[in-house]
Amino acid sequence: MKKRNALYAQSGGPTAVINATAAAVILTARKHKDKIGTVFAAREGIIGVLTEDLIDTGREWSRSISALRHTPGAAFGSCRYKLKDLESSRAQYERLIEVFKAHDIGYFFYNGGGDSADTCLKISQLSESMGYPISCVHVPKTVDNDLPITDCCPGFGSVAKYVASSIREAAIDVASMASTSTKVFVLEVMGRHAGWITAACGLAAEAEGEAPHILLFPEIAFDPDTFIARVDQIVKKRGYCVVGASEGIKGADGKFLSETGLRDAFGHAQLGGVAPTIANLVRERLKMKYHWAVADYLQRAARHIASKTDLAQAYAVGKAAVALALKGENSVMPTIVRKSDKPYRWTIGVADLKDVANKEKYMPRDYITADGFHITEKCRRYLSPLIAGEDFPPYKNGLPAHARLKNQAVPKRLSSGFAL
Amino acid sequence: MKKRNALYAQSGGPTAVINATAAAVILTARKHKDKIGTVFAAREGIIGVLTEDLIDTGREWSRSISALRHTPGAAFGSCRYKLKDLESSRAQYERLIEVFKAHDIGYFFYNGGGDSADTCLKISQLSESMGYPISCVHVPKTVDNDLPITDCCPGFGSVAKYVASSIREAAIDVASMASTSTKVFVLEVMGRHAGWITAACGLAAEAEGEAPHILLFPEIAFDPDTFIARVDQIVKKRGYCVVGASEGIKGADGKFLSETGLRDAFGHAQLGGVAPTIANLVRERLKMKYHWAVADYLQRAARHIASKTDLAQAYAVGKAAVALALKGENSVMPTIVRKSDKPYRWTIGVADLKDVANKEKYMPRDYITADGFHITEKCRRYLSPLIAGEDFPPYKNGLPAHARLKNQAVPKRLSSGFAL
Repeated sequence: MKKRNALYAQSGGPTAVINATAAAVILTARKHKDKIGTVFAAREGIIGVLTEDLIDTGREWSRSISALRHTPGAAFGSCRYKLKDLESSRAQYERLIEVFKAHDIGYFFYNGGGDSADTCLKISQLSESMGYPISCVHVPKTVDNDLPITDCCPGFGSVAKYVASSIREAAIDVASMASTSTKVFVLEVMGRHAGWITAACGLAAEAEGEAPHILLFPEIAFDPDTFIARVDQIVKKRGYCVVGASEGIKGADGKFLSETGLRDAFGHAQLGGVAPTIANLVRERLKMKYHWAVADYLQRAARHIASKTDLAQAYAVGKAAVALALKGENSVMPTIVRKSDKPYRWTIGVADLKDVANKEKYMPRDYITADGFHITEKCRRYLSPLIAGEDFPPYKNGLPAHARLKNQAVPKRLSSGFAL
Repeated sequence: MKKRNALYAQSGGPTAVINATAAAVILTARKHKDKIGTVFAAREGIIGVLTEDLIDTGREWSRSISALRHTPGAAFGSCRYKLKDLESSRAQYERLIEVFKAHDIGYFFYNGGGDSADTCLKISQLSESMGYPISCVHVPKTVDNDLPITDCCPGFGSVAKYVASSIREAAIDVASMASTSTKVFVLEVMGRHAGWITAACGLAAEAEGEAPHILLFPEIAFDPDTFIARVDQIVKKRGYCVVGASEGIKGADGKFLSETGLRDAFGHAQLGGVAPTIANLVRERLKMKYHWAVADYLQRAARHIASKTDLAQAYAVGKAAVALALKGENSVMPTIVRKSDKPYRWTIGVADLKDVANKEKYMPRDYITADGFHITEKCRRYLSPLIAGEDFPPYKNGLPAHARLKNQAVPKRLSSGFAL
């Protein structure tokens, strides 16, 4: 086997642990210097490949690469950029091969979610369709937990731990003051199509009556009347009500909540946030004092409260990706395979990329209670192990410390640029 | 000195560490059984006193009281309820004395912010004005850090650590994707009148050009044109711009931003959140992609990332309050006295309650840069030590574990109730 270089790139929204996967790919590849030469990283995902904007990770200090384990964001830059079909956009693929050839790339690792799996699948087909030999491995990452085949997605366990911890803490605050102040609290979380993150909020409720009391999933049509009746019932019984709401909840007509004609306090259609819309509905119908929070990027960047399990899995898929490439595999993705719930045991498997790309895994109906407002025991058994364990980052001056990479550009070898 | 009972009550919005103060009061009082009998807690602050709804903390397990150190919220319940003047509302004060007498309360500890200091001051005057001997100590607590005299307020250091850590993490996320995605990120934080929490966001920027790039203080009139020009300048130079904004920013006319006529994407006056309003302004004027987060209760309940310094100070003021009471002091508040910035050294002092009540401490002008958009080195020297050190809570099943108190009601001794 001829020694060739590797190229690693990050794609889509970052997670708290995607850089742990990067560290695993780089450090594992360094152990195979007989087969893998330089490990390049593309700046801003596939865009860096197209524009030949590469970084030589060999120029980074070992301690900086190790520090990626506790650094959120995407250390080499990421992008949302989907390649078109080979037929309609042949020039893009020819360019990719040109860049690969110029830097003797024999291994390509694309670290991303569903859209990235599609990009990776297309590139993996270059070997056959355009005669360029490459081993293309998709490395799973997404806070949304919506990739098929793999039991869970690296990145999800940490956001799950963050939202469950945060809603539990906020709920204690609400409970302390409910009788004279805020009675309803709404936390909006990510997950536009799949309700996994919303479901994770439910982990905070470990016994009957504990918060959160209501979860609003994108998989369940939102009905204002049923919701309001439930809030009223819970406030009467418990004194307060805590709601975890997906940013992607839709009405029975399939429209996102922001388009359903719900109004703000001035009678205007509400824009920009499910949480304020829900909270305002409570105010209008029940005249109750409310508060709401929108976690947004805070949730997917919260490396300070990452799940140890998630971190281990993020590292494991990076390591496995290199092993797969060294075996000469192409068009594959390492997966997490669950062996048992309790004690939680898992191992690494392999999926064929064509079975992964462009498929979203939603919450199964039996993970959601019959009334649509909470998670079932079955769901809890699935989710619980994913948030287990802590792996705190180092702190400096009272704040989480992060890796600082040089990310110097590798001199270009091609005379031509590329217009995106 | 005759042995008498103590009454502890929590007031106003909770902090991540107010229960550490509670633990300190209870555990310190228990060491003085010769002078202090039962330590009662009032349910929901002063309301529990008025309604004679008391809890005997002696009935709680020691381990539960110790666990208060890592439990956010207000363990005995809190309220926002301000006593009126003695002249206009004599019945309320007579009722307080009736309850105090019924349970032989000789020491009253009120744990709160500015409004609570006022309540505590009024009660402390009962000794003189109504002939009921009591030692009344206000114990400082507020995330807003706006109490006078004390160098800082227990509760603030932890929210400061949370917002600085969170905005730093989110900023790394934004930076990773800025060239093809989000360019401007806005985090809205608490502090309706004083910009201390907003200032704390600034701690995340330790070197030139680091995020957050812009801070919007309630002390500085918000001018949309200047703000937009600055955002544009920063995005051009850095590729992205991160903004920390106080919920209380106002226009030059002194009106809150939600009332300044700024419009949402549909042309409607925006309600419910400074962050979405600011973000939308960026979208309208600069056509840049944005994201925003509103931390709301998450920030003041975030015990999982509390400051060790803050926790130590929260405990120290509780301990000092009991010592003051035992010395027979009345109408006082223990304070934090700063001895030096670096190394940070502090001790406990005492303030006269009349100098504390109804006074708010705003950010000094020289803590804010001349352009009004960031903190100065002087401010950084003040803030830095307050977020130093970590004190992680125990985790169970992957989530922060909290104290669970029995909070059983003490049998009422008075035949009459009290209408609030």
